[in-house]
Amino acid sequence: VNCVRSGNLLFLAGGIPPLDDDTFLGKVPTDTSVETAQKAARVITLNRLAVVKDKIGDLDKVTRIVNVGGFVNSEPDFYQHPAVINGCSDLLVQIFGDNGIHSRTAMGAAALPLNVSVEINMVVEVEA
Amino acid sequence: VNCVRSGNLLFLAGGIPPLDDDTFLGKVPTDTSVETAQKAARVITLNRLAVVKDKIGDLDKVTRIVNVGGFVNSEPDFYQHPAVINGCSDLLVQIFGDNGIHSRTAMGAAALPLNVSVEINMVVEVEA
Amino acid sequence: VNCVRSGNLLFLAGGIPPLDDDTFLGKVPTDTSVETAQKAARVITLNRLAVVKDKIGDLDKVTRIVNVGGFVNSEPDFYQHPAVINGCSDLLVQIFGDNGIHSRTAMGAAALPLNVSVEINMVVEVEA
Repeated sequence: VNCVRSGNLLFLAGGIPPLDDDTFLGKVPTDTSVETAQKAARVITLNRLAVVKDKIGDLDKVTRIVNVGGFVNSEPDFYQHPAVINGCSDLLVQIFGDNGIHSRTAMGAAALPLNVSVEINMVVEVEA
Repeated sequence: VNCVRSGNLLFLAGGIPPLDDDTFLGKVPTDTSVETAQKAARVITLNRLAVVKDKIGDLDKVTRIVNVGGFVNSEPDFYQHPAVINGCSDLLVQIFGDNGIHSRTAMGAAALPLNVSVEINMVVEVEA
Repeated sequence: VNCVRSGNLLFLAGGIPPLDDDTFLGKVPTDTSVETAQKAARVITLNRLAVVKDKIGDLDKVTRIVNVGGFVNSEPDFYQHPAVINGCSDLLVQIFGDNGIHSRTAMGAAALPLNVSVEINMVVEVEA
């Protein structure tokens, strides 16, 4: 499933972008650009927040975005993973302000499910 | 060590399959098949649950499988990581029912320790 | 940010080594050696602990190193990720004794931010 709660923490599954077309598929930067991968990260984040809303009813109950894991489908010589995952991080801060500031690990995967360009998981703290 | 408890959560180290022979070594799908890698994921899961039992005495004290991280030793053009890690996920649901349903991140690693085909970590919630 | 607290847990962002020179850049074992990557893991760990000290004021308030994620910028045929991440694990046990013993996942990334050789994140339990 997309989300499991334990105590005040929600553990979100690795989210991937929509697969309607090929926009968010392939390796960065050969198959897709940093800019498009950033957009993938943003779209995934919106989807992850929809999962959180489904789970707890109201995003106002989010007390902190705790942790983000950002995995980029990466050529071996691609080094701008943080720029890609900023598509997620910047949106979280826009939406939640200081409560959206999170610890983060960005890295390059050798391959990702269904050949998506980006996969992101999260740990989110919510009201008791 | 294989398992650290903090509060009601057990954090399990990345588990690897047995190395008795070469069955569970190498990259998917060139050195080993999706089916064999699924079996590796299943065997790792049984081993992880043995670690949990060692730690808390009885698997009945598991209240929820919270999160699974599944890493596949992956060729750059392999995209079926979820199918591989289903060898873990399906077993967890068989054993624990609804409490075995977890959030999950499946991805492709460039290489894994000792060249194993699969590595899996978990967060497990247990009784106070 | 480098560290977010939720309850008694600190979630530390993926730390990378200093970039003053090229020592800690590149893939293991072609661009850099296992020994140098171990040293990178050790330096990252010292830096992560400085972050913890900044956050809670005193490392004596650390009750347990819970979990370590160690990512090595890895050639596809490199298999000694645990040896590299031991540069972190051994130091944690030296500093914290039994409380420094942690669960761990070591793996090979296809690429890492800024082409660093090692990236390490942690979950640390601290006093209430």
